[in-house]
Amino acid sequence: MLDVLAEGEAPARGDLAATVHRVADGAPALLATDLGAARGDGVFETFGVVDGHPQAVDAHLTRLASSAALLDLPEPNLEQWRAAVAIAADALPRTRQGGIKLVLTRGVEGTGIPTAWIVVTVAERDFAERQHGIRVVTLDRGYASDVAQRAPWLLAGAKTLSYAVNMAALREAARRGADDVIFTSTDGYVMEAPTSTVVIRRGDAFSTPRADIGILPGTSQLSLFEFLRSAGFRAEAGLIPVSGLRDADGVWLVSSLRLAAPVTHIDGMPVRHDPEMTGRMNAALLARDA
Amino acid sequence: MLDVLAEGEAPARGDLAATVHRVADGAPALLATDLGAARGDGVFETFGVVDGHPQAVDAHLTRLASSAALLDLPEPNLEQWRAAVAIAADALPRTRQGGIKLVLTRGVEGTGIPTAWIVVTVAERDFAERQHGIRVVTLDRGYASDVAQRAPWLLAGAKTLSYAVNMAALREAARRGADDVIFTSTDGYVMEAPTSTVVIRRGDAFSTPRADIGILPGTSQLSLFEFLRSAGFRAEAGLIPVSGLRDADGVWLVSSLRLAAPVTHIDGMPVRHDPEMTGRMNAALLARDA
Repeated sequence: MLDVLAEGEAPARGDLAATVHRVADGAPALLATDLGAARGDGVFETFGVVDGHPQAVDAHLTRLASSAALLDLPEPNLEQWRAAVAIAADALPRTRQGGIKLVLTRGVEGTGIPTAWIVVTVAERDFAERQHGIRVVTLDRGYASDVAQRAPWLLAGAKTLSYAVNMAALREAARRGADDVIFTSTDGYVMEAPTSTVVIRRGDAFSTPRADIGILPGTSQLSLFEFLRSAGFRAEAGLIPVSGLRDADGVWLVSSLRLAAPVTHIDGMPVRHDPEMTGRMNAALLARDA
Repeated sequence: MLDVLAEGEAPARGDLAATVHRVADGAPALLATDLGAARGDGVFETFGVVDGHPQAVDAHLTRLASSAALLDLPEPNLEQWRAAVAIAADALPRTRQGGIKLVLTRGVEGTGIPTAWIVVTVAERDFAERQHGIRVVTLDRGYASDVAQRAPWLLAGAKTLSYAVNMAALREAARRGADDVIFTSTDGYVMEAPTSTVVIRRGDAFSTPRADIGILPGTSQLSLFEFLRSAGFRAEAGLIPVSGLRDADGVWLVSSLRLAAPVTHIDGMPVRHDPEMTGRMNAALLARDA
């Protein structure tokens, strides 16, 4: 169930609805020479739609702009994207959860004109893992925790279309009988999951890896930490050694569609998990405004 | 000047010409949900066409198969690709140098059917850098030289569509007033360039970094080494410390379209360079068979 909106050259503000080009399910929309397809040279964001409302749009658009800057792409026109997101959200049935994916590529080679499109998806899954949890393995990301400072051309911290490694890591997890991955740095810190943010609990304190170690700043994690603070918990970003995973009072992978998935096992070893706390987290995330 | 052939579901052997779908210049060919465009999840090869003959097709198809295996993609049907390459080469004027790019992606999400296409390009450039040379900078690739052994899920050594980092490194080179990049490992070894292989000369011995340090095995470098050995030189793969770049008797970046480009400066320091030797190298590469 897909509905794709593709813009070629970015239209002027205000008249987006008139210029949006709607592509039917299964119809080709992209040139084979688009650098998004040819080089994974672009950025994206995915966010949830609940009861017809796209969630955390501001946080996602802020990150889209930050990713675009890291890739020297033209600055996204956020007002235009916001209007396009509203059009896209209208394509989803109000009663179903769904997802909206924004993509901005460097465009067709030689033109200098970026390509932008939105893919709208109705969630086919029931996200049962929010209740029964996930098994994860730790995998070496190959980078030290100073990679973003030392070598910005490696684009650590940008949400690029070049996700082949993230996908390969998930296949490696499946080979090891697990559902997901926690990447670790070569100097022994917890980084991120291929498509989500790691959150750890110890007592009444929650933590997540600092984004400046070369990972994506989490958007759902940001909302989650707002909820946790309002509920009286401490919630901070920091450096988390890999050893901190095993003796945690809870570990979650947090993302825009699956939301907070409790980790039940890491590398085959059981992890404490509190279904009531996870339930509160997901209720808070589902109740977010746009 | 582009001519795109796209296959959807791979046709049976032998009747490829009948089933190839030719896409006009500027016509959309790909679904926005193709994992090649959405995740950079696929592999590719690019090779030159000289006097109507695609060059080093076997070496490129071997590497395509190796990349596909590293990404757990279905094994490419090499006979079919060979037939498709012949069709594509016929689309190029005999009198012009050109390029053929093969792409194989994981296909549209959820279908399990890979997407394959070929892009044919007439070379618009005169490749004057084969004569006047290029300025390069060294950039940290962020990985240690044991990355491919230690963490195969990082896909070091696969030619994937996830090239955003390679492209970002080239932009960083431009910012530093250079034309190209030599990536180095965190433990101090020469790796590769974003789209070419590094070759170094010391006296009568040529060397290139060993592919098992997490780089692509070079196809043009392979042809070049055959020529060099036939001409009485030593030519071997090995571990090359970064310090070996500065006191070399010659450094080249070797690739399928630009062929052997002599390096004149590394990080602003001049490098010895022998135009006569470079001329012999490029003459040999241009005279390759298919």
